[in-house]
Parts: sequence; C-alpha cells; structure tokens
Amino acid sequence: MRIGELSSRSGVPVPTIKFYVREGLLPAGELTSPNQASYGSGHERRLRLIRALLEVGGLPLAAIGEVLRVVEDDEQPVHEVLTAVARRLTPLRGVEPGDELEDAREEVAELLERRGWRVGARGPAGESLAEVIVALRRAGHGSFVELLDDYAAAAEPVARADLDYVGRRVAREDLVESVVVGTVLGEAMFAALRRLAHADASARAYDGAPAGGRGAGDGEGAQGVRDVDG
Amino acid sequence: MRIGELSSRSGVPVPTIKFYVREGLLPAGELTSPNQASYGSGHERRLRLIRALLEVGGLPLAAIGEVLRVVEDDEQPVHEVLTAVARRLTPLRGVEPGDELEDAREEVAELLERRGWRVGARGPAGESLAEVIVALRRAGHGSFVELLDDYAAAAEPVARADLDYVGRRVAREDLVESVVVGTVLGEAMFAALRRLAHADASARAYDGAPAGGRGAGDGEGAQGVRDVDG
Repeated sequence: MRIGELSSRSGVPVPTIKFYVREGLLPAGELTSPNQASYGSGHERRLRLIRALLEVGGLPLAAIGEVLRVVEDDEQPVHEVLTAVARRLTPLRGVEPGDELEDAREEVAELLERRGWRVGARGPAGESLAEVIVALRRAGHGSFVELLDDYAAAAEPVARADLDYVGRRVAREDLVESVVVGTVLGEAMFAALRRLAHADASARAYDGAPAGGRGAGDGEGAQGVRDVDG
Repeated sequence: MRIGELSSRSGVPVPTIKFYVREGLLPAGELTSPNQASYGSGHERRLRLIRALLEVGGLPLAAIGEVLRVVEDDEQPVHEVLTAVARRLTPLRGVEPGDELEDAREEVAELLERRGWRVGARGPAGESLAEVIVALRRAGHGSFVELLDDYAAAAEPVARADLDYVGRRVAREDLVESVVVGTVLGEAMFAALRRLAHADASARAYDGAPAGGRGAGDGEGAQGVRDVDG
C-alpha cells in the first residue's frame, strides 16, 4: 500500500510516519519508483505498537526506540522482550536509600518467597512495591502492609487472565503491543472495579442497617438498594 | 499543646498550620492568653487528614475544604462521607459523549447487575470504568473487555480487605484518612503486585521450557529459578 493508505488505516498522519522512518522507529517502505514507496502489514503492525507505547504507555520516543530494538532482536527470547517492556512501563517514585527502603525490600523478597513467584525482588515491579511500602509507613499506615498477601492472592488470577489475553498474539510486535495496552489500561480497569467494589462493601457495612435504624438520606452510591441485605 | 509542639508532632510547619486555620481547614486553637493558643489531639488528627488528602490523594485545597465540610457534618452518615471522598479521588479522563460511551456504560451496568454489587453505574467509579472500556476499544483491544468478570472477581476480596482495614478506625477523620491512603496507595500496591505476578506468569509460560530446550540467556526476571516447573 502507499503511504496515504497506511496513514488512513493506522490513523497516523503522513508527516508523522515519515518522521518515524527518519528516527529509525519504522522501517522505510520498499521503493517502487524513485519517489514512491510501498508499505505492508508489518508497517501497520509497527505503527500500532508505536502508538500504544506512546499514547497508552506514555513512553518518550527514546524509550520507544529501545523497546523496538529488543523486539527486533530475534536472539531475545519472548520472556526477555516482555521483561524489557514491563521495566519501562513501571513508574518509580525514587525513594532515597536507607533502612526504611532496605526493610521494605526484605519484605518484598519474603512475600515472593511465600508465594513461590518466579521473579526477582530487585526488578522494577519489586522496587515499586518496596516504595509503596515505604510511602504507607511514612503516611502512618504501616499496618496496611498486612494486606500484602490478600492483594497478592488477588493479583494471581488477574495476571493469569492478562497472560491468556496476551498469549493469543503470534507476532512479537502484537504480543508487545497487547502487553502495553493490557498493563496500562488493565491497571485502570482494576482500579475502577476496586472502587466500585469499595462502594458495594461500604454500602453493605455502613448503610445496611435495618430500615428505620439510621434515618440517613439516600446515598448516591447505593440508590434504591437499601432494602438489600448486606 | 502549643503550636510548636503540634508542628513537630504532625510534621507540618507552623506557618502552614496558621494558613490552614485562616483558610478554615483547621479549627483555631483555644486561646489561653491574648496571643497564645492551645491545640489538642483533634487538631493533630485533622492535620493528618489534610496531609493525606493533599500529599497522598493529590487533592487541591478547594476539594479538601469540601471533603472536610462533609466530614464535619454529623448529619451525614458514614457511607455518605466515604462516597464523597471516593468521588473526589477518582480521576476521569473525560471521554466525549456518544454511542461508544453509552455502550460502555450499559456494559458497566450489566456487570454490576451480574455481580449484585450495591452501587450505581453512573457514579464516578462506574464512569471511570466506562471510560477505560472506551479507551480499550479505541486502542483496538476491545476483546480485553472480556476479562471484566475475572477482574471484578479479584476486586471483591481486595475491597473487603480494604474495608476491614478502614473499619478499625473510630473517629470519622481517621476513617476518611485511612480511606484516602488505602485507596491511593492500595492502588499502587496492587499495580506493583500485578506486575510481579505478570513476570511470574510470563516466566512460567515463556521461559519454563525444560532445561536445554530453548537456549535462551538468563532472564533478569527469573534468575536462578529455571529449574522450577511452570
């Protein structure tokens, strides 16, 4: 196909496509005449991946280039490619080193040991978890850390469902693209569901008194369901 | 206690405490002499809540004032207070109205019906979920929405654990403060755990071939555990 069709199919403007080619993010089209190039489904797939990394993942162009180099390197096994992507998607707060952080890292390592997870505690996700533990302690909520095992148990089926979804892809680019979208938007999806489940749990706990027992006004979070037993 | 002690106990500088009093966020201390005021544990608790809303929740001062007015209004039942806080903690992307969004809202309502959750579909968390569904479709990943029920099932025990944690508080201010910290940092905690669980699932799926079967280099995510069966 010509660049105009690639643009309309991918939703990426022609000047942007040319920019990606100049930056080495997208292979050049095959020249069919001195000033005309032809593009294929590989280009379309690559553009989808670039957009996912940019718009959903929020990665800067330099990081996108690094991810694409790993994707292109056929020597890299799939697990390495996914690890490389995951590392760049994980935001770190940057907690200063010290006893607090070391204690939290130790707790992360113990948790991974308890659950038998095949993952290093010092990777980006483990570091991110250690930072959250430090933030909880600093906010005076160290006992929230006791919920770690409940949370980890819930994360397991979610991760399995995610991987089933990702595993339907064949091309490495599609696999990586679905990891980016699934990681970022899946996180937002779980966050929204957790808040909905909070509202349900709160309605049952604090709003589930027998009729007439509270005299409270109708809650926005639980319209017309006051009669349901908790 | 005097303002200096309140400052050192809460970690909030004296000028900031005075600013909060002027803005009506913190009640004035009890005057013990024409230019000296005395503060109590209620002030300390209130400062903890303000800091949680500001630093953990990321709320602007105006929104903090609105939350505090609901907290102070003893006519408001606890469930209303928690709903008011949750509403302000939920980020909305702002998807333009249209058929896409209406379809997504319908799916959210059906999900809540299926799960029997006592919560309105059109509150902020339901809207946030509908927006995520739209974003997934736009990114070409509409089929990720099939994971909604798996995610919702995992969110239930997490929400129950959260509510158990929150329910240990007695004072309304402490309750609200723990909701803010638990919602925001709990989200970050789950996100990190989900990514760790991804790395584990990916190691098992893509890196779990019998020894010698792949010839891959050692993965950062799965050091020294290649011998474990998936």
